[in-house]
Amino acid sequence: MKKRTVLLIGRYTKEECNLSMYKQNFFVYKIDELMDLKKIKKYDLEKIDAIAFKGHSKIDLEIMNKFPSLRIISNFGVGYDTINIDDAKKLNILVSFTPDILSDDVADMALALYLGVSRKLNNGYEWIKSGNWVSQGEMPLNKNISGSKCGILGLGRIGFEIAKRLEAFKTEIHYFSRKPKKVSSKWIYYNNPLELCTNVENLFISLKGGDSTNGFVSADFLRALGKDGIVINISRGSVIDENSLLDALESGKIYGAGLDVFLNEPRINQRFLELNNVFLQPHQASATKKTRKAMGELQFRNILNYFENGTPLTLVPELE
Amino acid sequence: MKKRTVLLIGRYTKEECNLSMYKQNFFVYKIDELMDLKKIKKYDLEKIDAIAFKGHSKIDLEIMNKFPSLRIISNFGVGYDTINIDDAKKLNILVSFTPDILSDDVADMALALYLGVSRKLNNGYEWIKSGNWVSQGEMPLNKNISGSKCGILGLGRIGFEIAKRLEAFKTEIHYFSRKPKKVSSKWIYYNNPLELCTNVENLFISLKGGDSTNGFVSADFLRALGKDGIVINISRGSVIDENSLLDALESGKIYGAGLDVFLNEPRINQRFLELNNVFLQPHQASATKKTRKAMGELQFRNILNYFENGTPLTLVPELE
Repeated sequence: MKKRTVLLIGRYTKEECNLSMYKQNFFVYKIDELMDLKKIKKYDLEKIDAIAFKGHSKIDLEIMNKFPSLRIISNFGVGYDTINIDDAKKLNILVSFTPDILSDDVADMALALYLGVSRKLNNGYEWIKSGNWVSQGEMPLNKNISGSKCGILGLGRIGFEIAKRLEAFKTEIHYFSRKPKKVSSKWIYYNNPLELCTNVENLFISLKGGDSTNGFVSADFLRALGKDGIVINISRGSVIDENSLLDALESGKIYGAGLDVFLNEPRINQRFLELNNVFLQPHQASATKKTRKAMGELQFRNILNYFENGTPLTLVPELE
Repeated sequence: MKKRTVLLIGRYTKEECNLSMYKQNFFVYKIDELMDLKKIKKYDLEKIDAIAFKGHSKIDLEIMNKFPSLRIISNFGVGYDTINIDDAKKLNILVSFTPDILSDDVADMALALYLGVSRKLNNGYEWIKSGNWVSQGEMPLNKNISGSKCGILGLGRIGFEIAKRLEAFKTEIHYFSRKPKKVSSKWIYYNNPLELCTNVENLFISLKGGDSTNGFVSADFLRALGKDGIVINISRGSVIDENSLLDALESGKIYGAGLDVFLNEPRINQRFLELNNVFLQPHQASATKKTRKAMGELQFRNILNYFENGTPLTLVPELE
């Protein structure tokens, strides 16, 4: 096999990127983020056969055209909404991703956010630290989760794992997806997401990001959930009309929100930090050592397999 | 029915105690804590037929002897380790408690603590608030929970509910109890709790409090769990040798601990507040509006039923 050239883009931890493995197999360039591309000479860019990408910057025709030899973009993560697949198609560039291996961690985080906002876990810790437990006794009562009705928007791999966990919390499962899925007959299907919101208390969002779901969860959805409603989002900040969400949280029109993702990460809307009915995490749903290591290995193997056998292991569905 | 006299002891929220319902049925005295007993005249103490108790102060022969007419102590909560049952027996006083109705909430909290310490939820929020997300990028990677091996010490109602939830997180269930239980054949039984600890990574403690379990989880147990081990406690602070736990946490001999209960609550050991590998809550596992309301109703009905039909609804097992 001809020795190929790979450009690694992103800030990888040691678990996520086995650099010596890349170097054993490829010529390697490495930059921390896409805007550092300008540090690489045009002559070198032209040699690059594959990109291993970690990040959320936009990769479209303009970027792809800088790499005349590029055959594959291997994305680190299951979400690739910032990579323009239509543009990749035009240039015959394959795009691969790392599905499945992070579904458990992301579903776990969805449950963590749900428990965090319902059971006021931040307030609980503050109650101890501030000395309120000694001076004022018990913290204020909060909201139970077991026995609730929950809705899942998007029953892909991650949505399914969320639902399976919720079942163990004696939860009635309602879900929206384009088509009914082959799942437990107890799970209630909706082809209308707004109707789903009127029938549940808590909403879990596990939709794909990208243009087709931009602002999908609108003020109407939040109104339908009502003042006891909780919104959990582990997909992309873009799928919620974020200003409407902030308005609803500030005015108490919903009970709260548990969020791992935001618009304009990491420079998130500072209104979130003033709220007492949210539980916030810095897009860390898949950020465990074990999972990130597996994601990095799959990202690497997608490139290797493409050059050895002509196809990556996990191509994005649009290109299958 | 002769109108009886009830003494309410404890700081009840409006959800927990329907005072007007008590007053419709009984003559009522009310104090915030046991030490306020001195505010009640001896003449009045002698009229008290029932105590509705919420708290963790010791109620033994000396206290009980102040109430010559006392027939029943109706405890708010499933743990009644500070009420001396042997002393109650001697004086023919019944003791009731509020089992089952809080099992779901407490099991939910066990999962919240587990996710909190594994996925570093406190650090995640701090990472956003401090601006580190903007200045340093992603937070450090943490520890996944799905697919782990967990041990449950004590498979009563709450331990069972914890195990059922953990199963949905693809967890291998190991448990210790005096006798094997009629549960899933996949769950692995131990009659030796130390042996259990050597075979699992994470330990959930759902033992009863009281003298028989005092310091039950010793330094040996923690050593057996090892440096990836997590300890979750939602039962009583007394069941762990707390100094050994603090030593193990400070020296990194275990990965972390998620704790809702402590010795000397609410005046907990301040060493806990210096640690970065703990997730702490102020004994709020059952502190949801719905559950506390149900607990208060059962506490009331235990008294009412005793005087109407001669027996409370949920007598403590030692007196059955």
